[in-house]
Amino acid sequence: MANRQLKYVGANTRRVDGYDKVTGRAKYTGDLEIPGMLYGHVLRSHHAHARIVAIDTGAAERLPGVAGVLTGRDVGDLDPHYGGRPLIALERVRYVGEPVAVVAADDPLTAEQAAALVEVTYEELPAAMGLDAALAPDAPRVHEDREGNICGHDKVRRGDVAQGFAESDRIFEHHFTFPMIYHYSMEPHGVIADYRDDGITLWSSAQHPFLVQADLARIFGFPDSRVSLNVPYLGGGFGGKSYAKIEPLVVAASRKVRRPVRVCLSVSEAMVTVRRHSAKVRVKTGVKEDGTLMAREAEIYLDTGAYMDNGPQVATRAATRVLGPYRIPHIYTDAYAVYTHAGGAGSFRSIGGPQSIFAGESQMNMIAASLGRDPAELRLKNLLKRGEVMRPGLRPLDVNLAGTLKRLVSASRWKTRSRKDGAPVGLACGMTNAGGQPITVAMVRLQADGAATIMAGSTEMGQGVRTVLSQFVGEELQLPLERIRMSGADTALTPYDRSTGSSRSTTLMGRAVQQAARDVKRQLLKIGAAAFGVRAGEIRLTDGALVCGEARMSFAEALEKRFGAAAGELIGTGTVGPEIIKDVLPVVWEVGMGTVELDIDRDTGAVSVADYLSVADVGKAINPIQCEGQEEGAAMMGLGHALFEEMIYEGGQLVNSNLVDYRIPSFTDMPRGFHTVLVENGDGLGPYGSRGMGEGGIFSVAPAITGALAHATGVQFCDLPLTPERVWRALRTAGGTDRT
Amino acid sequence: MANRQLKYVGANTRRVDGYDKVTGRAKYTGDLEIPGMLYGHVLRSHHAHARIVAIDTGAAERLPGVAGVLTGRDVGDLDPHYGGRPLIALERVRYVGEPVAVVAADDPLTAEQAAALVEVTYEELPAAMGLDAALAPDAPRVHEDREGNICGHDKVRRGDVAQGFAESDRIFEHHFTFPMIYHYSMEPHGVIADYRDDGITLWSSAQHPFLVQADLARIFGFPDSRVSLNVPYLGGGFGGKSYAKIEPLVVAASRKVRRPVRVCLSVSEAMVTVRRHSAKVRVKTGVKEDGTLMAREAEIYLDTGAYMDNGPQVATRAATRVLGPYRIPHIYTDAYAVYTHAGGAGSFRSIGGPQSIFAGESQMNMIAASLGRDPAELRLKNLLKRGEVMRPGLRPLDVNLAGTLKRLVSASRWKTRSRKDGAPVGLACGMTNAGGQPITVAMVRLQADGAATIMAGSTEMGQGVRTVLSQFVGEELQLPLERIRMSGADTALTPYDRSTGSSRSTTLMGRAVQQAARDVKRQLLKIGAAAFGVRAGEIRLTDGALVCGEARMSFAEALEKRFGAAAGELIGTGTVGPEIIKDVLPVVWEVGMGTVELDIDRDTGAVSVADYLSVADVGKAINPIQCEGQEEGAAMMGLGHALFEEMIYEGGQLVNSNLVDYRIPSFTDMPRGFHTVLVENGDGLGPYGSRGMGEGGIFSVAPAITGALAHATGVQFCDLPLTPERVWRALRTAGGTDRT
Repeated sequence: MANRQLKYVGANTRRVDGYDKVTGRAKYTGDLEIPGMLYGHVLRSHHAHARIVAIDTGAAERLPGVAGVLTGRDVGDLDPHYGGRPLIALERVRYVGEPVAVVAADDPLTAEQAAALVEVTYEELPAAMGLDAALAPDAPRVHEDREGNICGHDKVRRGDVAQGFAESDRIFEHHFTFPMIYHYSMEPHGVIADYRDDGITLWSSAQHPFLVQADLARIFGFPDSRVSLNVPYLGGGFGGKSYAKIEPLVVAASRKVRRPVRVCLSVSEAMVTVRRHSAKVRVKTGVKEDGTLMAREAEIYLDTGAYMDNGPQVATRAATRVLGPYRIPHIYTDAYAVYTHAGGAGSFRSIGGPQSIFAGESQMNMIAASLGRDPAELRLKNLLKRGEVMRPGLRPLDVNLAGTLKRLVSASRWKTRSRKDGAPVGLACGMTNAGGQPITVAMVRLQADGAATIMAGSTEMGQGVRTVLSQFVGEELQLPLERIRMSGADTALTPYDRSTGSSRSTTLMGRAVQQAARDVKRQLLKIGAAAFGVRAGEIRLTDGALVCGEARMSFAEALEKRFGAAAGELIGTGTVGPEIIKDVLPVVWEVGMGTVELDIDRDTGAVSVADYLSVADVGKAINPIQCEGQEEGAAMMGLGHALFEEMIYEGGQLVNSNLVDYRIPSFTDMPRGFHTVLVENGDGLGPYGSRGMGEGGIFSVAPAITGALAHATGVQFCDLPLTPERVWRALRTAGGTDRT
Repeated sequence: MANRQLKYVGANTRRVDGYDKVTGRAKYTGDLEIPGMLYGHVLRSHHAHARIVAIDTGAAERLPGVAGVLTGRDVGDLDPHYGGRPLIALERVRYVGEPVAVVAADDPLTAEQAAALVEVTYEELPAAMGLDAALAPDAPRVHEDREGNICGHDKVRRGDVAQGFAESDRIFEHHFTFPMIYHYSMEPHGVIADYRDDGITLWSSAQHPFLVQADLARIFGFPDSRVSLNVPYLGGGFGGKSYAKIEPLVVAASRKVRRPVRVCLSVSEAMVTVRRHSAKVRVKTGVKEDGTLMAREAEIYLDTGAYMDNGPQVATRAATRVLGPYRIPHIYTDAYAVYTHAGGAGSFRSIGGPQSIFAGESQMNMIAASLGRDPAELRLKNLLKRGEVMRPGLRPLDVNLAGTLKRLVSASRWKTRSRKDGAPVGLACGMTNAGGQPITVAMVRLQADGAATIMAGSTEMGQGVRTVLSQFVGEELQLPLERIRMSGADTALTPYDRSTGSSRSTTLMGRAVQQAARDVKRQLLKIGAAAFGVRAGEIRLTDGALVCGEARMSFAEALEKRFGAAAGELIGTGTVGPEIIKDVLPVVWEVGMGTVELDIDRDTGAVSVADYLSVADVGKAINPIQCEGQEEGAAMMGLGHALFEEMIYEGGQLVNSNLVDYRIPSFTDMPRGFHTVLVENGDGLGPYGSRGMGEGGIFSVAPAITGALAHATGVQFCDLPLTPERVWRALRTAGGTDRT
């Protein structure tokens, strides 16, 4: 697409939600109160696996201020399952923290007090904690009606991997582990549900309002359109608020007491509600002596926890993502989602990516070291080219990988910095097939005062989508952003959008909104052509007005021309369907690469990042400063994964579910040098050739760090996080090597 | 328009809002609570005219629970005028009941108590109560900066009225009076306002949300689109909730305390907020001996009260409506809106109609009696024909008036019943130029479950607009009404609609919604054509599905075909602008006629209606039973005007502002025989040739009743209401005649 001079797109415009947020005026679900609303408190299982023998809610129900207590008995008339889980425990609990009852009361303290009065009699059962236990031949079954504990499996096959290894000069095989990670959004899940005979209204911090709508409609027996979901601002999502989470539970509670009920989770509760899959990854790679990749075999096990959620989808992604952005003639990968008796795992920024790319890219660094080759050169040799098919069934590559890697090498002065023996520098790169489905409808309304309203179902969760979509409308209509508005989704009023996630909002919603704005523009030009007595092509839009030669007519005047008064409006619509990718996913190939330089305190084992440089191929940076924010935010998250974060289960209990014991990166952990380079080849499917971003910055961090540690110390780390204790112990073992 | 077999249009479908209303689930503004909301109480002037010397709010402000007190001092930075009034009294009060202060407090009782603590020092000034006082040469001026008290004047001139009278064989001149009437909606005005730095959000029982939005935007200095008005159900409107009423006052209160504030008026407060204009009407008509109308002169004075509102518009309408649906070669009418020191008057079902048509049609009956002609025959002789221009500047007639009158005559067996001397039967007819402006935009969304949502700014105030619009969508899409939904207007989300009133929703919004539904249909047929491999014209829609021969695809399946999943939606838009009437109003000529038979108790003067038959030319009855409901509701209102209702001011005070002292018709007053005949010529501008209704039923009642009284007793009544006392006194005066 030929880009003429752009005014709003590509500019560091102010965030349209900035004022609301810095003044504290932005409303989140927990800020909302609905008249007649009760407060719900969830009583949770303290057993990892048990049969529920009896529940006595009598004492709780008798407590003054309690409106009712929901238990599994109340949902017997429904099929209460979604994402493989019941909305509340039925005969059995399968993880510590599983909802067993919900008390709805006049105030939160009464609800909590009453929950303590609910007496649950359990018969404890043996639990399978962790992948090894769950995969053991005699493991307790998490779901008694299933064969074993595998809940999802996907594989990639190409060529003949045995032949590939036979033709290789060198074969590398390593085992990696990746911990359970929590999203740690600023805002844990919050839901207000109002169940009525003829439908349900919810306010929820949901990333995917329309998918949640569909789940609720099915469970509670309404047509989709009778379930209205309102999504205010989200205090972060990162996939943790994808799909239905506690919405069905809160709706069931409201259905029980026939009043609106609000449940806002604590951090501890949210941590057992959803997290990233921990993983065990075996990667075996065959290479020629010159570094040409010949074959890769991988086996990935992912700890999905007690219920499926989208674990199988995570496995599917991992089976592909472990391959890296490389041309590999012989492939044989398997990824398994595994039930365990832990809280559930689900989507998390670049699903299945960090786990598998940590393994694949760590090994690439080991191969380079072993072959005595520069790790950048090794990669450059094997990178896929534009138009090549990375794995059968996926859309051919539309990116220039080599160009991006060369930018990384030059921008980081990689060759100079890595030349020195023992320099604590490392590098990694990755590519993901972001999973967004192209089903999106949007509207743009141009109102009588010349202001525009975007009606789009994208969830603003900090990523800046309202700003980006406003920029598209601003550009098409040449309308200043102060005169463009976009609110949160309300499924009753906002057009359908599949979901917010998988880097799909800038690209897919962007296209729909752009179309809608062009529809409005067409209508404006028609009015202008009639008013000026010229052809539409002779009119240009500028600063909220139509201009042709000396003639000028503001949008408000154009509306007045059309409607005979300061009144009326123009409505434009835009629709994106599967045709834009000819049914072959992904919409977006997302590319991220990074180099790191560490400070390593060999006395304490403490590792910190002195410098991080990230290169993201964004196609077109719609709002460069927001892109940098996304990229740096992702890198900080990757840094947390690499150095600090790990949810620790002991005896079925999550023992570090708070901000003190579960360590996330803080500002003091931020790299002293922190650089982002945006590659803009204009070759994405989004407006102006954009390709979406936000996932690419996360996955190169950990393998770059392990690469730097190995380069500096000779010790290869294959297990995360790289806590001081782990690093110190490994370094203390003189000349220590990795476990494999 | 050729109407094929219709399924939803023309059927007595169930009201789509019926279930909400009979279960009490329908929400009105007074049912809503907004978090953090305060309750406002309005302190009102108890002087009809006074200067405000001082206001001391100190004691009120100190009362615990009071957040703040708004007075005129707080709006000094604004131009606080709208509809000719300040939103709160500034230096002067001009009617008893004018808002002087608003207290916002934690609860309604505290607010009321605090309002009593506000000390206002007045300097009383002479007041002009009633038209005569206000029109006297030395009358106190209601607005000191204006010349005299006339606030609006319109006139109709045609031919030479002196010549017309000269050519007449007989000249009739009479004086009529019409009382002040209150709308008496079930729900008085309610408003919740939330003022913020960046805009205003309101919930209001407003008939014209977009016009109120524009007023508020102007007063408070925001672009229109920063003012969001939500309109829940209305408990009746009848014009009483047209234009801005208390919205600016409540917004100013919220602006003062920076919290949401709710004010719900009592009936007493609402009665001084808006009412129908009382009127004095002089009509002089010249006729040939054969009954041919030659000339009409009329002078109409309307009591607008202290502030203008739309009084001038009421005068404009009255100047035309006094002419009746007759061919009159020489016309000379003047109508004046007059300021007095009473509470304000404004729109009321058929503005200016009942007052002027009562006069004109009463006189027609007197002319018929005097000429010894049948009143129906007299009218038939003079009725305008299709295509004739009733008054210069208006759209030519598109109705068959004679046909409608013949239907009235035959359906009521008028000739048989009126033949008998002294039969208590009367007849009247009227026509109005309903004033709706054609500026309307609508959307129809077809969602993935095959359900449709109508997004239209029409206010449901009992008239059944949601049902009618649903029928249009049902018909176009052949979709059962249970699967069609429409909510209240929210100016932030609902497309622009000029107003709800003037019989414009079925016609104008109907056209916009029909267009939008056809836009969806076109998209559906395109999907169907591709799926079935046929031309779109070969597919028909039936029961929510596309059918072609044996092939059938539900709408949900069509969406799935389009989007590759049970997802997405189709959006249709429709726009109606001034082009549909080529800028010549009215959109709708509204015709209503009625015959009445009375029971007259000569001992007590009590008059009741034994039988009433109404004929309405509706063009096409979209929902016949709703049409009948509208027509009968209007007739009952007209019956109230004729027999019972009158707001009584004594010494500046409204003394009967409650349901006991202000008598409205009850079920026991309903005619024993109550019949509605709908004339359907399919010649209106609305969908299916509909022409809108709801105003036509009201204005024939009073002149038909005075005609029947005169026919039965020989006494002509020219003043309303016909209370037992008034009737008894007149009958007691043996052979009493009217005042003229």
